[in-house]
Amino acid sequence: AGLGGIALDTSREIVKRGPKNLVILDRIDNPAALAELKALNSKTTVTYYPYDVTVPLAESIKLLKTIFDKLKTVDLLINGAGILDDHQIERTIAVNFTGLVNTTTAIMEFWDKRKGGPGGVIANICSVTGFNSIYQVPVYSASKAAVVSFTSSLAKLAHITGVTAYSINPGITRTPLVHNFNSWLDVEPRVSELLMAYPTQSSVECAQSFVKAIEANQNGAIWKLDLGRLDAVEWTK
Amino acid sequence: AGLGGIALDTSREIVKRGPKNLVILDRIDNPAALAELKALNSKTTVTYYPYDVTVPLAESIKLLKTIFDKLKTVDLLINGAGILDDHQIERTIAVNFTGLVNTTTAIMEFWDKRKGGPGGVIANICSVTGFNSIYQVPVYSASKAAVVSFTSSLAKLAHITGVTAYSINPGITRTPLVHNFNSWLDVEPRVSELLMAYPTQSSVECAQSFVKAIEANQNGAIWKLDLGRLDAVEWTK
Repeated sequence: AGLGGIALDTSREIVKRGPKNLVILDRIDNPAALAELKALNSKTTVTYYPYDVTVPLAESIKLLKTIFDKLKTVDLLINGAGILDDHQIERTIAVNFTGLVNTTTAIMEFWDKRKGGPGGVIANICSVTGFNSIYQVPVYSASKAAVVSFTSSLAKLAHITGVTAYSINPGITRTPLVHNFNSWLDVEPRVSELLMAYPTQSSVECAQSFVKAIEANQNGAIWKLDLGRLDAVEWTK
Repeated sequence: AGLGGIALDTSREIVKRGPKNLVILDRIDNPAALAELKALNSKTTVTYYPYDVTVPLAESIKLLKTIFDKLKTVDLLINGAGILDDHQIERTIAVNFTGLVNTTTAIMEFWDKRKGGPGGVIANICSVTGFNSIYQVPVYSASKAAVVSFTSSLAKLAHITGVTAYSINPGITRTPLVHNFNSWLDVEPRVSELLMAYPTQSSVECAQSFVKAIEANQNGAIWKLDLGRLDAVEWTK
């Protein structure tokens, strides 16, 4: 999990439910948020490691080794790193797509049942734009289409790897991410305003749907989290 | 266009129809194929420039400037670079996704009507795995989902940019690409054999459908080219 808009509220909801450990991986430290999470529930130990998802695979494996050595078991990985800025083509793809694939590939080293691992569960935060693009940010939307597809493939590989997966696809959620962002080649300078004219949900509503999806624990599900609701998307193609 | 399996046969079909110019951009020179194309139709001037789609955007713009300066007009861009090897995560994403986005972004410099450009047409070679993944190659399939999405967004931006776009999505086609390739984390070492057990099409059949799609010239179309047929896919999500 991370410390951004949806991730922070989701971390709060998770800690309220009192798992033994919550490990936060994020690029930037947020001491106030971390202190709050640590104080929220005495049953849960919250730890933080700095992590940039764009590092090479070997570095991701090294960090995960440290974490697995310390905790012995990890049950759930949430891949949540994301940026929204279509002026930054390479970085959008590196964070939203390559970073998620590499972090997933790294954890297979510890979870893959073919290597004697215990299996595990992956929740990938994608976006409804993975199947209904915001065409003014075609690079962002395409990166999300990629991770929705990747997650569905992971789910179909569960019988081989022992690792199950589902995608978490928020609709427009009021977070810092969507307050102001660049469209591709400035095709629509007012895109964030236009988006905010639609009905939206708060990040707390999104987080509450997220923990419901975690509890449902359904391999291959494509969860849509929009307007405070949680719905399974039927993929008809 | 390029000089690979589907691209070479498509180039042959295009030259038969006698456009004024065909410019081939590919990473590797193929003198025999080039000589054959040049000899095929005296109406068409065939030229070749070396081009690796993974170069930075500025380099793509520079190469296109050379081409636009020489030809004055370019009517159609075919983005066809692709690799299939899920051992190479970064490279798959760089060639299949980032390369296509950057080449598209580069040509907007010359075509975008907001800059006084004349508009143009983009045909992006994606894959049916963009909507029906081969889950044993989840990275490849995800990169193709990304470019299908990106192409559909481009089409929706045509009223702003003057540039139309459609995707060319071949099914399993007998090309060197699919004869032998690696699955992700070796989840299925026999994936290329398994694939070849399905009904397939030849690259000539695929190329013939491709030129039909070029002639149809339908903004936003998601063309499926499979088993010698050309069909428009209805996207219901």
